[in-house]
Amino acid sequence: MKVTPSISLFPIPGIPLITPQDDLALVINKCAQKIGLELKDGVLVVAQKVISKAEDRLVSMSEVTPGEKARKIAREDEKDPRHMEVVLQESEAIVRHGNKVLITETRHGFVCANAGVDLSNAPGEDIAVLLPLNPDESAKQLRKGLEELGGQRLAVVITDTFGRPWREGLVDVAIGSSGIAPIDDFRGQTDLAGRELVVTTAATVDQLAAAAGMLMQKDSGIPAVWVTGVPVTGEGCVADLIRNPSEDLFR
Amino acid sequence: MKVTPSISLFPIPGIPLITPQDDLALVINKCAQKIGLELKDGVLVVAQKVISKAEDRLVSMSEVTPGEKARKIAREDEKDPRHMEVVLQESEAIVRHGNKVLITETRHGFVCANAGVDLSNAPGEDIAVLLPLNPDESAKQLRKGLEELGGQRLAVVITDTFGRPWREGLVDVAIGSSGIAPIDDFRGQTDLAGRELVVTTAATVDQLAAAAGMLMQKDSGIPAVWVTGVPVTGEGCVADLIRNPSEDLFR
Repeated sequence: MKVTPSISLFPIPGIPLITPQDDLALVINKCAQKIGLELKDGVLVVAQKVISKAEDRLVSMSEVTPGEKARKIAREDEKDPRHMEVVLQESEAIVRHGNKVLITETRHGFVCANAGVDLSNAPGEDIAVLLPLNPDESAKQLRKGLEELGGQRLAVVITDTFGRPWREGLVDVAIGSSGIAPIDDFRGQTDLAGRELVVTTAATVDQLAAAAGMLMQKDSGIPAVWVTGVPVTGEGCVADLIRNPSEDLFR
Repeated sequence: MKVTPSISLFPIPGIPLITPQDDLALVINKCAQKIGLELKDGVLVVAQKVISKAEDRLVSMSEVTPGEKARKIAREDEKDPRHMEVVLQESEAIVRHGNKVLITETRHGFVCANAGVDLSNAPGEDIAVLLPLNPDESAKQLRKGLEELGGQRLAVVITDTFGRPWREGLVDVAIGSSGIAPIDDFRGQTDLAGRELVVTTAATVDQLAAAAGMLMQKDSGIPAVWVTGVPVTGEGCVADLIRNPSEDLFR
């Protein structure tokens, strides 16, 4: 007896190093076709770095002049002061700084290390890769592009790898999405015992990000994963699941 | 052309409401067999509630006498004072309290709402379900039980649904595991550009928990999911990924 899985994850191999000259939808669609994947009724999960490179969200470190604050942090944390300068420029606020870790709030409202500014896997030694300016819009545009190429009933989730408080290890989270409700809202439904569920709302896009993350480890060369078996329905985007700072107990 | 997924998730249906009289390994193995699943070379992800019920981690609220502190919190938060009393008994420390949310540190070192003490889906109106005393040991015992029934090269991950700072929505995380490294440690490896990866360590068990969580929503009646395509290797358990409080910036 052959059992059919409910949810399946397909890595999309062969995606080359992306530049701003590339049409990302075209590249991904071609690589998916090559392994026989039809981008219909599923979720395309894409690593942030690919989006940022396609959108030219790159900064040459040689053009960065670190200010006093960046130099101070770099000295304390044994980091590159130019890197820290870019991080500060990408940050709305410093949330925590200690143990050589700088946690900031980005323009999008994400709270993460170094404002998501990364030096690894950059196209050159002295290039910093910044988060997309508007990852929800990036997801929307990529979805549109894939639909124009024949994709149907598909969602796009853009992910980055964040640390978290209290636990070691990183997990991928959604930073942008289009075509799927970010939170599967159960409020008002009842559980199996008939009790009303009040606050049980699963963050679907983050579950998708973490699942796909298992195939997108940094050394795998896989920046895109196709997920089937998850209902592709609902409105909204990742910006909707950022908690209102006034309701946040960990600011 | 039929594409083979890299990672597949199979919900295991038909698991009845569990009592301390049940042999959980036997029940799960039978339900897996019924749909033709062989528990070999994969990860069994199980919801905490099932484990807690099998281990009789239940408290009858009618036997709880709330103390002054529990009554005060219950008054402020419009909660059941007996529930709050159980939460306090299960907590090592209160981490945050505000907006009618009580975040505590459990005996295991988990930081979560209400010490993981849950009233929903309990076998009776006045029963609170507590976290397992030692979820890593629970995972080990379940794995052993499944191996005795013919399971091979399998890991067990026990999950609960936690909220998180800065983001709305809940995501399942691992609270116990056996048979798989909790963190896939990349330290010392190099990325595609040859740069040394310093702190990129994926929390594999939490990725598995989040992925399986998509099939274990509270109204689905699915408390166990079989995951294939993830390497079942490595040592350690969930206790190993609790961050040392002295290194935690969010205590």
